[in-house]
Amino acid sequence: MPCPSPRDMQSDIHLIGSGQTRFGELWDKGIRDLMEEATDAAINSSPCTALDIDMVIVSNMLAEVTNGQAHLAAIASSLLPHHPPAIRVESACGSGAFALHTACAMLESGRARNVLVIGVEKMTDVSVDTVASALMGAADSEQERPAGLTFPGIFGLITQRYMHEYGLTRDELSLVSAVHHRNACENPFAQFRLPVTPDAVTKSAMVSNPLRLLDCSPISDGAAACILSTEHAGAARLVASQIASDSLSIVDRPTITSFSATKDAAERALAEAEITLKDVRILETHDCFSTAALINLEDLGFCDPGEAIGIYHNLWRGGSPLDGARGRLPALGVNLSGGLKGCGHPVAATGIKQLIDVSKQLQKTGDRYGLAHNFGGAAATCGIHILESIS
Amino acid sequence: MPCPSPRDMQSDIHLIGSGQTRFGELWDKGIRDLMEEATDAAINSSPCTALDIDMVIVSNMLAEVTNGQAHLAAIASSLLPHHPPAIRVESACGSGAFALHTACAMLESGRARNVLVIGVEKMTDVSVDTVASALMGAADSEQERPAGLTFPGIFGLITQRYMHEYGLTRDELSLVSAVHHRNACENPFAQFRLPVTPDAVTKSAMVSNPLRLLDCSPISDGAAACILSTEHAGAARLVASQIASDSLSIVDRPTITSFSATKDAAERALAEAEITLKDVRILETHDCFSTAALINLEDLGFCDPGEAIGIYHNLWRGGSPLDGARGRLPALGVNLSGGLKGCGHPVAATGIKQLIDVSKQLQKTGDRYGLAHNFGGAAATCGIHILESIS
Repeated sequence: MPCPSPRDMQSDIHLIGSGQTRFGELWDKGIRDLMEEATDAAINSSPCTALDIDMVIVSNMLAEVTNGQAHLAAIASSLLPHHPPAIRVESACGSGAFALHTACAMLESGRARNVLVIGVEKMTDVSVDTVASALMGAADSEQERPAGLTFPGIFGLITQRYMHEYGLTRDELSLVSAVHHRNACENPFAQFRLPVTPDAVTKSAMVSNPLRLLDCSPISDGAAACILSTEHAGAARLVASQIASDSLSIVDRPTITSFSATKDAAERALAEAEITLKDVRILETHDCFSTAALINLEDLGFCDPGEAIGIYHNLWRGGSPLDGARGRLPALGVNLSGGLKGCGHPVAATGIKQLIDVSKQLQKTGDRYGLAHNFGGAAATCGIHILESIS
Repeated sequence: MPCPSPRDMQSDIHLIGSGQTRFGELWDKGIRDLMEEATDAAINSSPCTALDIDMVIVSNMLAEVTNGQAHLAAIASSLLPHHPPAIRVESACGSGAFALHTACAMLESGRARNVLVIGVEKMTDVSVDTVASALMGAADSEQERPAGLTFPGIFGLITQRYMHEYGLTRDELSLVSAVHHRNACENPFAQFRLPVTPDAVTKSAMVSNPLRLLDCSPISDGAAACILSTEHAGAARLVASQIASDSLSIVDRPTITSFSATKDAAERALAEAEITLKDVRILETHDCFSTAALINLEDLGFCDPGEAIGIYHNLWRGGSPLDGARGRLPALGVNLSGGLKGCGHPVAATGIKQLIDVSKQLQKTGDRYGLAHNFGGAAATCGIHILESIS
């Protein structure tokens, strides 16, 4: 198809600006306020003005139900004075990564040179029951929902099976949330900046056996925004953007203790970036429930199936995560932001926030490569982005 | 960004396969059934097998509310044996065009070579009140909704203002629906294959003064699917794909009798296709309410503001639509499918179905160029695609 605009793009996609709201119960802010705050911060941190943005991709999962608001593309466009074209993308809790992937295609096609990507969710304006039901939209409405399952229920089943297969104990599982909470204390945007001990996790209220309250990422409001550009250079460039899909229902899968969409996306992302997993030193992974963090580390290839708890043992005692016999890799920052558990999980904002956090951590540590791993539902969809720091 | 797959794409995007369900009240089919039926028809009409599809873009607006189902990307992917990557795109009633635009970027970026685009809506499983409320998600939840407006209410206001500005009469307005209904009689996929007279439109039940029942597109179930390809050639190629945005709320606009998103998208689409409006001989335009069809013909440039009813006078008496003093163009097929009024309007399927119908009509008439015009809400977002027949 002929493209009327000059294709003077450079081939690299740079992350040139980013911003986010605090995640939490933000009673005094509406969905538009959240989008605006994150957008302003992203533009202000970039070499762009608002008028340089030639497309907006907005990710949101729940607003139809929680805010009576679809059609967020028009709102996102209206945040900028010149109303650039805008598209809403949704892939449940993985919406953020899917918006980033769409933005990459827009840039690579030459249809845009500076794309604003906004993820937003405003979950606390409705009852917990309404949110829990809306979140079940990420599962199969013809299978899991009629069975009476909620998402904690689905991950409760997954956790029971994982414990059965690998001998993980309840006390060990508690290390995951404790590590993430400790990390979140350092993050000014996190919903929960309070340390919790593994014992506190184990003793917190039962949600879905064996998952306890402190194993579950919370209901949150928040927005995150970033600007991807082929026109300007930034401190990091995207060297991989991959998405993958699996069966929506866990019933249709050969196993529930491993997620094939993560494996597929990871394999393709590493190939696209032309690196190996050993090069990845910063990781933000989708710990919607504690068990997910373990499965993710295994599916991404950082350790063998059933071995991921060893990484959290190391992290909890402050050692290098991959010390000892069970680790393969020399050094890895895991959810240094606090992850979904510590930061909060305004679902469609999470994937954007992960990329922002990977970028910040690369700048801080001086490491070269970081990976953001975001999935939807029980990983029926997965998006992976790899950032390379430029220094 | 380096792309690992070989970029042996051709530059043109071809429409190589298409299919749809009948639109209507399809009580015996679920949302997955509808997607599957349209997908199978699209693949069977193409030179592809299912395994050739390397990405799926699915457009849907309402399923979170009407079916408790978000995350349609995973369902769409599961329709194919190899679970290719899939993305859901939403832009209210314009979702279909926005999915097509996203597919174009994926093809142009080289990330895909054969993209299946599915639009689906399953609206009749819930009460009319629930659907009406869900559709109001396409308007501004902080402005129109608290004012008590529904979408017929919004277009009622628009129609009152249009009548005031241009002297359109109620009897004249009835010609629009009568023409679309007559056209729908020829369309085996249309929800309403029954002719209605202008008098019947005028005398149908009042919905929102001055709009009557037969001015309003109905609540419908249905799916439409097409395959866009840079690998295979088809009977038509896409020579333009453009999207545009406006303020979500009509309150924030300088006029409500013209839609700037249509004008923006049309101007850019004609430039991209390197044609003028005189070259367009087939048009499918977004007649969600009768008045919209008139405004659209004016915004697209087929006639001056206030003059579009002249086209429908000509169409109704069976003449060339642009006969007489008020027309500018020699021959134009307008909503020969029956439009949204005659075919039904399963909202996110409409934009895909429009493209399919333009393609069919080009094949039938031997004309070269056709245009599909799809918008969301009160044209807060708009997508335009231009097809060129290859013969």
